[in-house]
Amino acid sequence: MPLPVPVLPEGVDPAWLPPAAFRSVGGRRTLIRGSGPLVETVHGEVADACRRFGGRVVRGAEPGDGAYDLVLDLGVHDLGDEDYTVAREGGTTTVTAFGGRGLLYGLFHLVRLGEAAFSGAWTPKTHRPALTLRMLDHWDNVAVHPVMGQVERGYAGGSLFWEDGRARDELDRVRAYGRLLAACGINALSVNNVNVHATEARLLTDRLDEVAAIAGALRPYGVRTHLSVSFASPVMLGGLPTADPLDEAVRGWWAEATRRVYEAIPDFGGYVVKADSEGQPGPFAYGRSHAEGANLLAAALEPFGGTVHWRAFVYDHRQDWRDRTTDRARAAYDHFVPLDGEFADHAVLQVKHGPMDFQVREPVSPLIGAMPRTRLAVELQVTQEYTGQQRHTCWLGPMWSEVLRFRIQQGSTVGESARGGLVAVSNVGDDPFWTGHPLAQANLYTFGRLAWQPDAEPGAVLDEWIALTFPDAPARLADGLHAVLDGSWRTYEKYTAPLGVGFMVQPGHHYGPSVEGYEYSPWGTYHFADRDGIGVERGVTGGTGFAGQYGTPWAELYESPKTCPDELLLFFHHVPYGHVLKSGKTVVQHIYDTHFEGVEEVEEARAVWASLAGLVDPARHARVTERYEEQLRSAREWRDQVNSYFFRASGVPDERGRRIH
Amino acid sequence: MPLPVPVLPEGVDPAWLPPAAFRSVGGRRTLIRGSGPLVETVHGEVADACRRFGGRVVRGAEPGDGAYDLVLDLGVHDLGDEDYTVAREGGTTTVTAFGGRGLLYGLFHLVRLGEAAFSGAWTPKTHRPALTLRMLDHWDNVAVHPVMGQVERGYAGGSLFWEDGRARDELDRVRAYGRLLAACGINALSVNNVNVHATEARLLTDRLDEVAAIAGALRPYGVRTHLSVSFASPVMLGGLPTADPLDEAVRGWWAEATRRVYEAIPDFGGYVVKADSEGQPGPFAYGRSHAEGANLLAAALEPFGGTVHWRAFVYDHRQDWRDRTTDRARAAYDHFVPLDGEFADHAVLQVKHGPMDFQVREPVSPLIGAMPRTRLAVELQVTQEYTGQQRHTCWLGPMWSEVLRFRIQQGSTVGESARGGLVAVSNVGDDPFWTGHPLAQANLYTFGRLAWQPDAEPGAVLDEWIALTFPDAPARLADGLHAVLDGSWRTYEKYTAPLGVGFMVQPGHHYGPSVEGYEYSPWGTYHFADRDGIGVERGVTGGTGFAGQYGTPWAELYESPKTCPDELLLFFHHVPYGHVLKSGKTVVQHIYDTHFEGVEEVEEARAVWASLAGLVDPARHARVTERYEEQLRSAREWRDQVNSYFFRASGVPDERGRRIH
Repeated sequence: MPLPVPVLPEGVDPAWLPPAAFRSVGGRRTLIRGSGPLVETVHGEVADACRRFGGRVVRGAEPGDGAYDLVLDLGVHDLGDEDYTVAREGGTTTVTAFGGRGLLYGLFHLVRLGEAAFSGAWTPKTHRPALTLRMLDHWDNVAVHPVMGQVERGYAGGSLFWEDGRARDELDRVRAYGRLLAACGINALSVNNVNVHATEARLLTDRLDEVAAIAGALRPYGVRTHLSVSFASPVMLGGLPTADPLDEAVRGWWAEATRRVYEAIPDFGGYVVKADSEGQPGPFAYGRSHAEGANLLAAALEPFGGTVHWRAFVYDHRQDWRDRTTDRARAAYDHFVPLDGEFADHAVLQVKHGPMDFQVREPVSPLIGAMPRTRLAVELQVTQEYTGQQRHTCWLGPMWSEVLRFRIQQGSTVGESARGGLVAVSNVGDDPFWTGHPLAQANLYTFGRLAWQPDAEPGAVLDEWIALTFPDAPARLADGLHAVLDGSWRTYEKYTAPLGVGFMVQPGHHYGPSVEGYEYSPWGTYHFADRDGIGVERGVTGGTGFAGQYGTPWAELYESPKTCPDELLLFFHHVPYGHVLKSGKTVVQHIYDTHFEGVEEVEEARAVWASLAGLVDPARHARVTERYEEQLRSAREWRDQVNSYFFRASGVPDERGRRIH
Repeated sequence: MPLPVPVLPEGVDPAWLPPAAFRSVGGRRTLIRGSGPLVETVHGEVADACRRFGGRVVRGAEPGDGAYDLVLDLGVHDLGDEDYTVAREGGTTTVTAFGGRGLLYGLFHLVRLGEAAFSGAWTPKTHRPALTLRMLDHWDNVAVHPVMGQVERGYAGGSLFWEDGRARDELDRVRAYGRLLAACGINALSVNNVNVHATEARLLTDRLDEVAAIAGALRPYGVRTHLSVSFASPVMLGGLPTADPLDEAVRGWWAEATRRVYEAIPDFGGYVVKADSEGQPGPFAYGRSHAEGANLLAAALEPFGGTVHWRAFVYDHRQDWRDRTTDRARAAYDHFVPLDGEFADHAVLQVKHGPMDFQVREPVSPLIGAMPRTRLAVELQVTQEYTGQQRHTCWLGPMWSEVLRFRIQQGSTVGESARGGLVAVSNVGDDPFWTGHPLAQANLYTFGRLAWQPDAEPGAVLDEWIALTFPDAPARLADGLHAVLDGSWRTYEKYTAPLGVGFMVQPGHHYGPSVEGYEYSPWGTYHFADRDGIGVERGVTGGTGFAGQYGTPWAELYESPKTCPDELLLFFHHVPYGHVLKSGKTVVQHIYDTHFEGVEEVEEARAVWASLAGLVDPARHARVTERYEEQLRSAREWRDQVNSYFFRASGVPDERGRRIH
């Protein structure tokens, strides 16, 4: 039986799967062959499209029947579960796949192609994801947290999954969400916050049925469900006196708990663990290593094919700002590199892409290149915690692409090193536009597509998103959307913390400027600005030694202010305000110039958006317009506070005599 | 029938009324004459003391009977309701009063005197309060506020009055609280936060019975109950389309609501209103003046003898930090002085003692000297919002005394100008020690006594508090307590914001240092520090003109950095770091020195306190010890952050070469 396409609740935006995106497929005669649950999903998709656009769909007829424009064919080739081959010959387009997910991804491939999927002739081409795990982490709390709210670092309303302290009864929207994820290639999802509080810990045991219900809603679109668990579960939930990973009773407890999880959710993906990090429990309490901690859970998951994602975000969050020898940037490398080779096969070490915390500009984490005998997953942040909180337009495709294409070691890129997958913190909530800012949908879509193909051109992915989301867009609209999004990350960088120094946000919620907000804090996030200069000395000579954690050529390049790229200069070096950048500008003049430019670019983007009124549906246009008003207000605040701060500190007037307060 | 003394719940500290404080009275033969409810309270007090210490008490016998050591005599002289005359002749001490409160205050006067009340002979002396209204404002919320908690700016647990969203059923502790207040002379109390939220607004109407219950518990000790109300009540509660103070229906609504209040609480004190301030509704919305707003409520209260306390805390809390022409310090004067003479008799304008907001050092508000035709109440803050939040020992007696004795106009002190009374924000909650920090009880006691006698020597009041609270204290304990409290305000000033500049606290909760925390905020609280200097230019020439709001000689003194007192220099002037103070030190060296000294003084106080172990009950000693640990940690943080900030900004090394980070 074909599975009906999930029904979007009234008023919810279809995002990148509006009905019109299916016009080309829906107008054709399609043959589907093969069986299995995901074939029913594919059948349901094609049938729904045909109902709208006049085509028809048949199951199981003989191949080679010239009466079909499209054949979706499962099981004839020896491909991976997610791979598919597309070809076109004699007026028939064919997708062949070995697994149900491959067939589904092949269908969405044709949807992206639109009319081009049905013209000309092409030789067979096989598509396969570069990374087998393409995952979203939802930092959703079941019980609303008094400070962090329901979705930690969420800017799009409440949780899609949890409401009133339990899993939602009505999961249509979750089904529709799974469909959106499949259409951009995401195949795994963790349903709760990595900071696991008391209520959420119980999802592993007596509230497992709620997780199973969500998993059931995501499964038809090939998205496997993962769960964030507390390392202290054997104590919190099992009543054991210890959570020591070498304790036999603890190992037995995890084995039994995991067995029950797979009983309820046979395709369960595995656990996500934030241990010994920002107050979460972990193996350090028992004098055990993080490898011993991770391997405990890997051993419980291995019989069922599951994986533990063990986060490498371990650092001292009670640092003394007076102590300049401690460097948070070094922490993940210092903690984990000595453990290379000790992690079990079913353990994946999940590493943030930068050494700090999802700033608008950071170097790539040196840990990614330094653990060749460990499966690493790279973690990105789609939710815009430090990049405008979905009130600012900030399309992160170019940043992620730079990271993924960065050659971190021996010719390997980050994308190639991420053998354990690409993971991102989700930016989605129960907002009608899914992401609060409608244009922030582009970030989620881009993440999925880059996870599938890390060396993809981000600009092409952006255009793909535009074409799907606005299927009948005139060129002026498509060009306008491309224009306001394409440079928005660099614009955001311009008006916020300069030259890679990071932070300068308001403490706690992290929105808006506070140049000294984290300067005397315990969080290890300092810029050391004084009347003479600014920046963190992280060289091997005279610094914290962080630059030495890189291999060739990066260690040498970053070591000296002469060779360090401008955009990372203050991350690696403390320099006088008069230091001349490769651009020929002094640091302080660069700060002034970029902050004036950043605001001007927001003004321009706002004007472009205004000019698109009438080409975009009114609700969406109004929502984005309102966000641009706030972005502009906030960007001006950033400009004025940052410029004033550095003018007050340096005493250097702006060369161009602009108003600095 | 004598009223039994309220029973303290198990584990609650007796504060300044421990049983032993009544030893002298309780061992005597006492005659009480007169009738009325407060005479029963007095009788209950004496009877309770006699039960403990072997004396006896008789009602209504003939006067002049030599068999009595003490005669408490109501109604024979034509004194004010609160006045009392004490005399001693022929071995009998006599208190005569015209009103019940006078008799009660006379009794507590003797309690303070202890054995001295029963020795020698004295000619009659009449005591009367300098101020008729001596009031505490409780910023207690009925419904716990998601950000501000139950008690706004409260540091002593939850509310004494409200629990689980309604008035407490059990009011014994409220009775005991009224008794403590009477013993230091406080006679009025407002039971809810001046920021009146939706739940609390209803106390005026359908939840009036809860207020009446509290009023009933406070009444036996002569404390009248007041209520904070929302100016928008006619709209919020009455369903009227407007709250315009000149609208007849609005006036009628207030008249009727007030009539019902007096029906339930015949001795109701009146309303407290925060209008057009930090988001609260007010008359500005209707184009009316604050006098028109206040007079609306005064008219409703007048038939019953009640008063409206109208707060003068009106300023622009959405100020643009870039705009240096707006000065929050000016706001109250600018708003209210033009209205002098327009306020009705039953309206009292309640003015914070300083022009900003309860900083550790501010000049006296010039408004206090500038409205001779208006009844002013002066507002102090006993709760230590900006002075260590009852984690730091900071006895505010000397600061309040300086304020109250300050000659603001034509030879009149602030204490003399406060014809509408002295009001303070309470520092009390349901903590077993009432005030969180046990030594913070001294602040509440001192406030009450200074409200009775604004020109009292604060050091003598402190010793009075020590003698009552620790009735059998050896000299070493009394001296130690005096030592750690007496200079604690100046110590706190030393290690926090320097030279009157104020703020530099962490935004929101206001605890701990953040030199730039409010520098680019909308709150109007700036210091304008840059690489060259610091301070706010508030002179008439070249400044905001604030200094010109004062009369002679203050306007002239404050106008020039040469004559401005050191401790207020940065409040009134922006000066270079090298500016030489009257002390002979430069500003920056003064900052370094005071911050090192402040921490040393905390270390000394902590050592003194440690030496008192064994002389103080263990629970109290432990609580204070724990607070000193935190105070010392926090003071060091203040020292290091402030010193580092100014060293980074100025580049001037410490003359004495001490470690600055």
